[in-house]
This record gives sequence, C-alpha cells and structure tokens, in this order.
Amino acid sequence: MADAAVSRIGLAGLAVMGQNLALNIAEKGFPISVYNRSTNKVDDTVERAKEEGELPVHGFYDPKEFVLSIQKPRSVIILVKAGAPVDQTIATLSRYMEPGDCIIDGGNEWYENTERRAEQVKEKGLLYLGMGVSGGEEGARRGPSLMPGGTQEAYRYIEDVVAKVAAQVDDGPCVTYVGPGGAGNFVKMIHNGIEYGDMQLISEAYDVLKTVGGLSNQELHETFEEWNKGELDSFLIEITADIFSVKDDKGEGELVDKILDKTGMKGTGKWTVQQAAELSVAAPTIAASLDSRFLSGLKEERVAAAEIFAQYGMTDVIAAQNVDKKKLVDDVRKALYASKICSYAQGMNLIRAKSIERGWNLNLGELARIWKGGCIIRASFLDRIKQAYDRNPRLASLLVDPEFAKEMVARHNAWRRVVGLAIEAGISTPGMSTSLAYFDTYRRGRLPANLVQAQRDYFGAHTYERVDMDGAYHTDWFKIAKSTKSRTRIHVL
Amino acid sequence: MADAAVSRIGLAGLAVMGQNLALNIAEKGFPISVYNRSTNKVDDTVERAKEEGELPVHGFYDPKEFVLSIQKPRSVIILVKAGAPVDQTIATLSRYMEPGDCIIDGGNEWYENTERRAEQVKEKGLLYLGMGVSGGEEGARRGPSLMPGGTQEAYRYIEDVVAKVAAQVDDGPCVTYVGPGGAGNFVKMIHNGIEYGDMQLISEAYDVLKTVGGLSNQELHETFEEWNKGELDSFLIEITADIFSVKDDKGEGELVDKILDKTGMKGTGKWTVQQAAELSVAAPTIAASLDSRFLSGLKEERVAAAEIFAQYGMTDVIAAQNVDKKKLVDDVRKALYASKICSYAQGMNLIRAKSIERGWNLNLGELARIWKGGCIIRASFLDRIKQAYDRNPRLASLLVDPEFAKEMVARHNAWRRVVGLAIEAGISTPGMSTSLAYFDTYRRGRLPANLVQAQRDYFGAHTYERVDMDGAYHTDWFKIAKSTKSRTRIHVL
Repeated sequence: MADAAVSRIGLAGLAVMGQNLALNIAEKGFPISVYNRSTNKVDDTVERAKEEGELPVHGFYDPKEFVLSIQKPRSVIILVKAGAPVDQTIATLSRYMEPGDCIIDGGNEWYENTERRAEQVKEKGLLYLGMGVSGGEEGARRGPSLMPGGTQEAYRYIEDVVAKVAAQVDDGPCVTYVGPGGAGNFVKMIHNGIEYGDMQLISEAYDVLKTVGGLSNQELHETFEEWNKGELDSFLIEITADIFSVKDDKGEGELVDKILDKTGMKGTGKWTVQQAAELSVAAPTIAASLDSRFLSGLKEERVAAAEIFAQYGMTDVIAAQNVDKKKLVDDVRKALYASKICSYAQGMNLIRAKSIERGWNLNLGELARIWKGGCIIRASFLDRIKQAYDRNPRLASLLVDPEFAKEMVARHNAWRRVVGLAIEAGISTPGMSTSLAYFDTYRRGRLPANLVQAQRDYFGAHTYERVDMDGAYHTDWFKIAKSTKSRTRIHVL
Repeated sequence: MADAAVSRIGLAGLAVMGQNLALNIAEKGFPISVYNRSTNKVDDTVERAKEEGELPVHGFYDPKEFVLSIQKPRSVIILVKAGAPVDQTIATLSRYMEPGDCIIDGGNEWYENTERRAEQVKEKGLLYLGMGVSGGEEGARRGPSLMPGGTQEAYRYIEDVVAKVAAQVDDGPCVTYVGPGGAGNFVKMIHNGIEYGDMQLISEAYDVLKTVGGLSNQELHETFEEWNKGELDSFLIEITADIFSVKDDKGEGELVDKILDKTGMKGTGKWTVQQAAELSVAAPTIAASLDSRFLSGLKEERVAAAEIFAQYGMTDVIAAQNVDKKKLVDDVRKALYASKICSYAQGMNLIRAKSIERGWNLNLGELARIWKGGCIIRASFLDRIKQAYDRNPRLASLLVDPEFAKEMVARHNAWRRVVGLAIEAGISTPGMSTSLAYFDTYRRGRLPANLVQAQRDYFGAHTYERVDMDGAYHTDWFKIAKSTKSRTRIHVL
C-alpha cells in the first residue's frame, strides 16, 4: 500500500456507516484513506470503492501507514461505537498524528466525552471535532446531515469536504459549524430525541386510524402517501406509507402486522430526557416516546395485564366508536401536525437552554436548516422552523411564532377530538395527549401552581410570592386553618 | 460544657429540621449532644430544649467536645445541606471519631454520594448510614418517617432511638432498615418524586373543579374535607382542605388566590425523572409533575403566550362547560385516585428496578408501611399498597393487584370523563392524562410499537422480531415498497 500522503482525509471504523461515508467522500472527489482494526472490513471497503466506479479509496491495515497517508494537516474521521472504542481508536491513531492534525468523532457520543477528549488530545497539539451524523446507512452514502462541533479552526480543515458530502437542499448543504465544545454531539442528541417523538406520534396516528377508524393497511398506505404531499411531507411519513405496502413473505397479509410490538432503543433518547430534567426544560413529548418504548418492552406484562383487566370486564378497546373515516383521517393529520410542533418546540428549547448554559451561541434557525435534508427527521416542516427563527431569533417558543400559532389555532379542535376519542376508546395516545397538555399549559397565563406553592409553604415553610405585591411570604397555614375551624365550630354551636 | 460521654447520640446541623429532630430524640428519653458551626443555633436549640420541658439536650460549640460527649460506639446524625456541606461536616467530625463509630446523614442526598462517603469513612473504620427523613419540620419534631440505609450493623446502633423517634402507626414505627449502600437515600428520593406527583394531581383536581366546575374556595374546602374522609384520606388532601379556608390577611378573599403560580423545586424530583430514564422505567406521572413545575416557572412567557393566542381568538378556557357540580366532584375524586395508583405504581417499580440493579433486596411492602405515617405522602392508601405486596411480593405492578385492578375498573369511566372534559375546556391535566395514557398502555396486549420497529428496520437496519416465529429479521423495505409501487403502477396502466 502507499506510504506517501495520498489522501485528502482519513476514516477509521468501517462498519456499514463508515464504509458508506468513506465512499460518499471519495465519490465527491476527495481521495480518502480508510482503516479498520479487523482487516476484512478494509478489503470490503476497497472492493466496494472499485465496484462503485473506481472511487479513490486507499485501504490500510496498519494505523501508522494509515495516518501517514493523509495530507497535513491531517483530518481523521472516527466512526466506531460510542464510549471506550472511541478512546481506544484515538489512542491507536494519535501516536502517529502531529500537532495541528485533527480528529473528528462521527459517532452518537455523549457530548461531555467529546469535551474530555478534546482536552486530552489538545495536550498533543491535536484539534478535535464531535460531529453528529444523521441519515442512517443510506444517508451516509447519499448525503447525510452533519452536525460538527468543536474547534472552529478544525472545521475549516474539512469545510470543503463536508459541504460536498452532506445532503444538498435549496439553501445549501446540510452542514454547518454548530458551535464549540460538544455542541455538535448535543445537537445530534436532540435531533434523535425529536426523531423518537416523531416516530411515537406517527405510531399513535396509525393506532387511532387502525383501531378506532378501522382503516386497512391499504387505506393506511394511501393515507400516509396523501399526507406526504402536504404539511406532513417528510422522510418518516414517506417510509411509513411504504411500510404499509410491504407484504409478509412468510405468510398472509402485510408484514407490519407480524412485527412484534417491542421497540428497541439506544442511548440518545434517554440522554435527551435526562438533559431536559437537568436544564429545567419540559420535553414531555420526547419523554412520552421514551416511556412508550420502555412500556412496549414489557410485552409479557402487558399481555398478562390485559387478561387480568378482561376478567373484570375491561377489554383492550373499551368502547366501540362510530366514526366518519374521512373526517377522522383529517383530524388525525391535524393532531399529528400540532403535536409535532410541540415536540419540535421542546427540542429547540432544549438546545437553546444548553446553548445559554454553556455559552455556545447556537443558531437555532441554521440548525433547523441543516435538518432539512439527509437526516431521519428531514421534512419540509423544518423550513417553516427556520423561517420562524429568521423572523425572530429570540423566539421564546415555536408555539408563539405567528405562523405556528395560527396553525395551532386552526388545528386544536381536531386535536382535542382525536385525543378525546382515543381516551373514550381506551387506547392511549401518550405523545399526542402530553403534547396537548403541554400546549394548554404553555398558553395559560394562570396555572393551579399557586396551590402547589401553598402546600409547599404549609408543610415546608418554602415561602411563596404573591400576584399583587413583591416579596417572599410565609404563612402559618396550620395555625390559621385549625383556629378558623374551631371558630367556625363555636359559631355553629 | 460537659466533656464526659453524656449523650446517647449526637446531631450536627441545627437548622429548623435539625433542631426539631434533636428535640424529638431528647423528648423520647435519649440524651443528645448537638453541634452547629454557627454557635447561635446551638444556643437556640438548648434554649428550646429548656422551654419544651427541660429536655436532655447538650449543646457544644467545639466539634471535638461534641464528639467526645457521645457514648461509644458513637452515632452522629448530620442534618446539613446536601452536597459539599456534608463532606465538610464529615471532615470536621470524623477526625475525633474512632473505629466503630457511625455517621448518619439525614439530608436529601444523592444516593451515590452516600456510597462514596461510606467508602471514604470506612478507611477510618467508621460506619455510615444515609437516612431519608420525611415529614418536614413538623414531622421532625412530632415523628417523621425515617428511611435509613447502609451498613446493617450501624442500623442496630440506632434502632432503639429511631423506633421511638419515628411516627407511630398501627403496625409499628415508621422506620425500617431499608437496605445497603445508598438505598435509604434512593427510597427517599422516590418518596419525593411520588410527593411531586401527588401535589400535581391535587392541583389538577383543584383546577378542574374551580375552572370547569366553578367551585368557590368554600366549596373546594368542603370538597377536600369530604374527600379526606374516604379513599383519598391523606396529609396532602387534609392540608389542601385547610389551605382553601385561609383568608388573605392583606386583602379580600382567600389567600390561595393571591399566590403566584410559580412552583419552586429542589433536586429530588429531577433525580427521580433522570433515574427513571436510566432504569428504563416509565414514570410519566412523576415526570409530568416536574414538567409542570418547569412550565409554571415561565410565568412571563405564559402570560405573553396567552395574549398571542387570544389575538387569534383562543382564550385560556376555550369552551364553556355545562356541568353537574356534584357529579363532577365525584368524577374528579375518582380520577384523582386512579391517577394516584398509577403514580405509586411507577414509584414502586422504580424502587424495584434499582433494587434489582444493585442487589439491594428491598421490601416494597415494608417501604409502603413506613410511609403510612410521619411523611408528606402519608395516607391510608399506603396500607392498601402494603397489603398488595403482602399478597404478592413479586407483583409486576400495583395496577394488576386484584384489589387495585378492581378499583381502576370501577373508576376509569369517571377518569376518562374528567380528562376529556378538561381537554374540551382547553385546560391541561398533564398528570391525570399522562396517568391515563400510562394505564391504557400498560393494560394493552398489542401496542403500535410494531410500526416503530418497522421504521427502525427501514432506515437503520435495526432488525425486528415477529409475533409468530422466533428470531431477528431484517427486510429491505425500501426495495420492496418501491418495486411494489412500480408494479402497482404497471398494473394500473
């Protein structure tokens, strides 16, 4: 293999994502060196590069040769499992790297790990980027959404590469310099949390249409195809339409009905929910989607619970509904869209809260823009979000952007009907109903939290504020209430 | 001051909670030494001990004299702010303590901090307990619920003391050896999470009755007094009844209406939600109560949002309701009770999950028992939970205990009416609605999670399981769907 600096960039970690991203980079005209600990993956990648049009991919079995084959200042993308494998790969490669070289971790890494590693390699004079990559295997090959964060200088090393490698939309490539430190990983984590929310909301729409509305898979297929032409136009709606059309090759009917209702998950959804609590930001739609995955995992418990409640006369679907299918489809579409706005409002507010906490100065509109293509949540909807932040970069919430607010007002009655219908039917729409509660809480000037404050002051002397004058107050509720009571009693006597 | 070992036990940290607990211990016949860094609190405590009946409280300004005044093996309770102050107090006191002595942290400490400190002081031969204390200032004085965890040997040192100091209920004192390590702190944390849930659910009941039902504060007072005689009988319902009776001493009407609707919080609710995500346990009712506190804090944003939506014709309460007050009160009571069962089911399952993870072998029924008195969530309801675990210690969820299941079946229609009514009215009941969604999800044999799995397999090749055969499967959905489509198109042509 070559030992001269033949490549513009390097990539280590050649599982399918890594292979695909390497081929994508090579296809865009950037010679790339690739390396993997198990050498057969190197061979596979080189083989694929040949097959897919003699792409300039140089394979290496030896980490030193790999590093030295890259032009200085060297940029090396790492695409291995988050956690310890990243540390190991950095240790392996960094010993051959020189001051000014740059490591780019493309995994779903916890943002603080990126910051720790950036500090570590800084001692050797190396630069570091944590770059979220979304779009799955297909996106990596055809054009992903890229969310690089870290040293801005390092970003300039790879700007020309990522600008061509990323998905291209009307207003540019789906990549931007996100921000310093672990900002790229953090934003990717929130992207994934939003993705959880979208998938949950779509599954609830499916459930209501199928269980309450009685739609067949063919009708569901047509409905989602139709939806994909309007306000819901997005990758996830498109693939959902596709899914309903796939026949079971091992039996009768459509495959979707044969799939076990247990949902897997990785760490990013969990982290999003934990960060929301940490940042004091409500993100109930995303949390509901995580909880739904947890509960879906309890398949045996759920089946047992259904049997127990059936013994007491309560069936899964507790009330037969007489619905107008066409109207239901229309209502569910609106409910899904309105819920989605709430979910994205939560996600964007999480990013903003972290940005403020860390002084990252993130540009929310630009982040919405780079999600318009390449990634799993890509949707025409994201352009509306970008526009909202263009109109007002200091927007408190997407919900109060004039355009979104009007959309919510136009849809909330349908949304209420859908959630109400599901509640009557005894089927749960945790994402839609929690989104609605979020909306109704956020748009309310006066909440019953005054009572909670009174309780806290009653038993814990936590004090309270008043609506009509400044200051913190404490009342001896017990003494007053009990004396009032005895007075009342005396009066009665 | 005395320098002989005059006391059975010591207590350091004399804010109101510490003072009250010290007086409680002394009152039960255990001479106690007390210490505080700022000496005036020592004087206050000694003074109060005199006033409240010459209680055997010995005050110390000097940490060494304080420690030496306690009989060996010494037990010292620390009641200072969680975090660094605990470390500082341990450092101050432990230098005078001897192998076999024991430190008991009574604060709301993160359980891992307790485990870290237990390891630290073990090097000096000291024993350590992390002891949750619930009941507020009043509980500390009159009889709290105590949740000590750590070395069982250390628990035996204080067993006679805590058995008398704790609240007393029909089946014993509200204290037990919870379990090893940080189990006591963890259980107290979940207790607080449940407390958040109870308070949120009560505030929603209040909101529906006031906003939809039009109940006056007097009617609310009477309603909660009445509720406190039945299945909802509890400390929090009792103080809520009291709260509605307290007049504003600075103006007209009742004080509750003058309290600002912004809720404060400490760390335990947040930790509970983060642990739920960590343990893959759904705890949406507790999470909803935390989110509601976050959203309550955004008072200015909410007021602004209400104005914006009003411009588009959407008022806070969007639909006038015509309700039968008596029936509504009855329905809301049932909704509150059913939601509460869900919330406690979540809390108990969190404890069980942690107990399994850590091998703590916690006894859920016994924990329900020690919450029956002394603490903020004390309620006759907890005896029902204890009974449920007595009937079946391996109960998967409180929801499927035969007695609770029957109660849910008897209440779910009322619950659905209340949540449905709130949704129509445009007021949010996040705790009640998320509890209902939790219930309807948990009791359902088949969820729409099959679609989520299909989506994950479509874009990420995550594979899926089937309902009808074992194994993990992957389908090339894209290829099949798109080819089906072209086939379909050809057929149509």
